[in-house]
Formats: sequence, structure tokens, C-alpha cells
Amino acid sequence: MDIGGTNQTVAVAAADGRILDKRRLHSASGATAAELVTGVTAALDDLLSSIGAPLSRIGVGFGGPVDFERGAILTSHHVAAWDSYPLVEQLSTRFGVPVILDNDANAGALGEARFGAGMGHPHLIYLNIGTGIGAGLVLNGSIYRGGNGLAGEIGHITVNASPDARLCPCGKRGCLEAYASGRSIGERAGQPGQEVMAAARRGDLPSLAIIQEAAAYLGLALAGVTNTLDPSAIVIGGGVSEVGEILLAPLRVTLRAHLIPGMPVPPVLPAALGYDAGVTGAVALALDT
Amino acid sequence: MDIGGTNQTVAVAAADGRILDKRRLHSASGATAAELVTGVTAALDDLLSSIGAPLSRIGVGFGGPVDFERGAILTSHHVAAWDSYPLVEQLSTRFGVPVILDNDANAGALGEARFGAGMGHPHLIYLNIGTGIGAGLVLNGSIYRGGNGLAGEIGHITVNASPDARLCPCGKRGCLEAYASGRSIGERAGQPGQEVMAAARRGDLPSLAIIQEAAAYLGLALAGVTNTLDPSAIVIGGGVSEVGEILLAPLRVTLRAHLIPGMPVPPVLPAALGYDAGVTGAVALALDT
Repeated sequence: MDIGGTNQTVAVAAADGRILDKRRLHSASGATAAELVTGVTAALDDLLSSIGAPLSRIGVGFGGPVDFERGAILTSHHVAAWDSYPLVEQLSTRFGVPVILDNDANAGALGEARFGAGMGHPHLIYLNIGTGIGAGLVLNGSIYRGGNGLAGEIGHITVNASPDARLCPCGKRGCLEAYASGRSIGERAGQPGQEVMAAARRGDLPSLAIIQEAAAYLGLALAGVTNTLDPSAIVIGGGVSEVGEILLAPLRVTLRAHLIPGMPVPPVLPAALGYDAGVTGAVALALDT
Repeated sequence: MDIGGTNQTVAVAAADGRILDKRRLHSASGATAAELVTGVTAALDDLLSSIGAPLSRIGVGFGGPVDFERGAILTSHHVAAWDSYPLVEQLSTRFGVPVILDNDANAGALGEARFGAGMGHPHLIYLNIGTGIGAGLVLNGSIYRGGNGLAGEIGHITVNASPDARLCPCGKRGCLEAYASGRSIGERAGQPGQEVMAAARRGDLPSLAIIQEAAAYLGLALAGVTNTLDPSAIVIGGGVSEVGEILLAPLRVTLRAHLIPGMPVPPVLPAALGYDAGVTGAVALALDT
């Protein structure tokens, strides 16, 4: 299951990770956690009855902070309806199988590592650039979570330390997300981020300049991460990444410029799984259990 | 063994990691690799004959880049005499035991994690701030090396991206090392780094301002690392760290200021092993084999 605030995907996969069938759901904004859980539960019931095979495990990627150890949703102003919701308990009681829950960035990273653009790369940095910027790290082939389960906040690395740097929705100034998220790109252009992307593709110079600046800051932040972690590959997904080389080419320039000489430049690859990265990662999470 | 260009330490430890005896050696500048190896070999012979127990393994922390997989010293302008020196082969042939070689920053990180300030912290960032800045990462209890064995170049994270940022000895501009290493502190003060440290301790304001700026950049870089890795602790060692809270207190201020809200501030701890971090880490490396 890939559970976001407005979109949910429920898929059933075989033991080798192959997705057998899936359902896409869209919920009204303001839907409660219980309503969303009712929706994905019904979708899973439906899939299972059409496939007719027993369920062994459920993996869930959730679009917000989770307590991986406890299997619960953490408090967040983004996903208020889910505060402390015991999602793992609910699903494991309902379906009688083990449930593994992680945030969607970690699930997406694992999905791309196992079944997508990151295949064959043991140390992967995955960035999902949408409205905000989520990131997940796969190190030595496994999700790296850190001391408090909060690793991967690459979107909140300070890339501009000056006092007049752009304010980030997190409350801090100068974060990568304040320059390179879809929200930020849209704010600077005074129109929705997706329209800026479309205009850039048509060669609109002001739109290209905004994307170029976003790309430069992405490369700067990822150079710091690369100097620290020497990753085998960097995979970029999410809506903003759909402009492709318009974003990735200038990103690679600043990435290279800020690496210590001698550090190989990791390949920067477009994500391969698109909207299925989350649910594919949820499958990988379940298989890893 | 901890093998640096001018100082070497050879220690013999019991199977529980306790150091039984050690020798400190100093070499003339310009000594060849063969001369240094002759010195540490003689010291180990001497220690073994006085202890009278059989040798099972040798761990080596080396003050320069190493090829961990091949057990050889990499080419570096810092340690020219050692270019491609097959150190592991030499020592394993001479002593008839397995030899494990890593760079001294990784060895120091493992030493502090197992036997020093980082005990009990599964995810540790270790910085050695001396003439330059070395760093090692212990993640999930083991040294993290990255795709090319080059992880830990935290000293070369760009902390000032402006075109007139300070030039780093690596050739890049605006690196952390260009603001916070002992060399950089000395250059900015126009006197040796150690004298700046001593003056700062006496309350000399210009010296304090230089250390304050170094600390601010250290906190900024470590905030980026913490947003990415959510470490359990940060341990700071090396000569510059001997000024203690004069450095660590302002470092903690900028570290906290650049973390995403909600990310716990990791404890920033002075290293506990001092000059023995490297050789203690070499013992831990050998025990891990």
C-alpha cells in the first residue's frame, strides 16, 4: 500500500516482487484516517478475492512521518487526521498478517533500489521532488533510518546560509526545499509549479532560469551528501523531475563542481517507477521482513 | 598500528580490545615507506617478545587514502613515499597473520565508537580536526565506506558557495576545511594554529573570533550531515578540538539552527581516546575481521 493524503495505491505482488494487480484510489481532501483505511482495506479485499491466493504480509509506504519501530503515524501538521494513528495494529488485526510501515520516501528509495533505476547500486540516494522534497537512503542494500528514524531530510539541508535566504515551510531559512520543490518553483514564478515546468519545456527563459536555480541548489546539496556518503547512484523522482534533462543536466554541473577532487561523480538517474515507486517499495519492504 | 607521516603507534591488545603495551615512534620527514615499515615492524617484534603471546591479526590505520578492498595505499600528494605501497602484503608476509588496513579517520571513528566517547551510539559521525579535517562514519555499528571507499569527506562539504570563498588545499573553494582546519585557522591569524588556540584560551578576541567562525561553519556542515543521517552522536577529536567548549559551544548553536524542526540535536562530544584513537581503532578493525 502507498498511502498519501489524496492518492492511495493498493497492489498485490508475488513472492518475487512482481505486481499481479493494483487499484488506484483518490480521496476527498479532509477525509479522515478511518475513511482512508476503510478505502484501502476494501481495495485489498477486492484484489485478494480476484487473485484467490493467500496473503502473507503487508508493506505500507505512508506520506508522512512514521514511527518505524512502533508502526504508528507520527504527529505532523501535514497529516493531522493521522495523528498517532495505529495503522499497523489496525491492518494486522483486520488481515491477520504482519504489517511493515515506513514513510513513502523510504519505500520509494527501496523500490527504486530493488526494482527500478537503482538496481545494482548498493548505496543509493533517492530524492522525490514534488510539492515538497522527500528523500530516502539505501545503504549497503537496506534502508538507512538513523538514530530516531528521521534520516533522509536532504530537503532541509541549508543551501543558502544568508539571513535573507528564502523561508521554508518547515520554518527554517535557506533549505534546499525552499529553492527546489514544486511549491517553491511555483511561488517564485507566480504560477503553479507544473505550468512553470511546461513553460520551461517550451523554452520560456524566465521559467528555465527558475529551474536552473533549483537544479544548481540540488547539485550543491547532493555534492555535500556525496562527499559524506560516496553513493553508488542518485535517483531523482517526483513531479518536478519530469522535466528531465532540463533539471538533471545543470544539477550534474554543480554536483561535480562541489565534490572533492578524486571523488567519482555518481550517476544521477531519473526514477524508473514513476507513481509506482511507493507501492513497489512497499512490496520490497514486505519482502524484506 | 597507527601509521602517520611523522608519528606511528604500535600497540598489542588482548582479544577484548584492552591495550597491553604500546610504542610511539617518530620519523624524520622524508623517510621512505620502507624505512617506516622497518620501524613499525621492529616495534611489533619488540612488543611481541616482551608479551610472549601469539599474534592472531594486525589492524592498521593509515594517515592517507587506502584501497580497503586491495589493502594498498592509494596515490596522494600528501603521502608520496607510499604510492601504491602494498602494506597489507608486506606485513602479512612478515608476520604470517591476516592484516586489515583502513585510513586513520575510519580507524579513529571505530575506536571512538567501540572504546571511546561514542560507546553506546550505533550511528556515529567522527571528525578529526588537525592540520586538515578527516572524518569517519560508523553506521549501524560498522564503518560505512561508500561505493568507492571514499565516504567521510565531510571536510570538503562546500559551506560557502560564493565565488570569493576561501581556497581549500584540495583545489576547491569554500570547503569546511578551508575555514575550520588547524591550517586554515593559522593562516587567517598569521601565526601557527596552536598559538591561535592558546591565545583564544587566554581570551584574545581576534583569536576567539577566528575559532568562532570555524565553529559556525562546522555546525553548518554537521547540520547538513545530521539532516541526512540522523546520527546518534557526533564525536570531535584532533588538535583543534583541544580548545574544548570554546569550539564546541558555538558549533552546537549553528548545528541546532540548521536542523529541520523536530530532528533531535545529536550530542556533540569531545573525543575520549586522544592520540590513541587511531591505534585503538586499528585494534577494533582487527577484532572485527
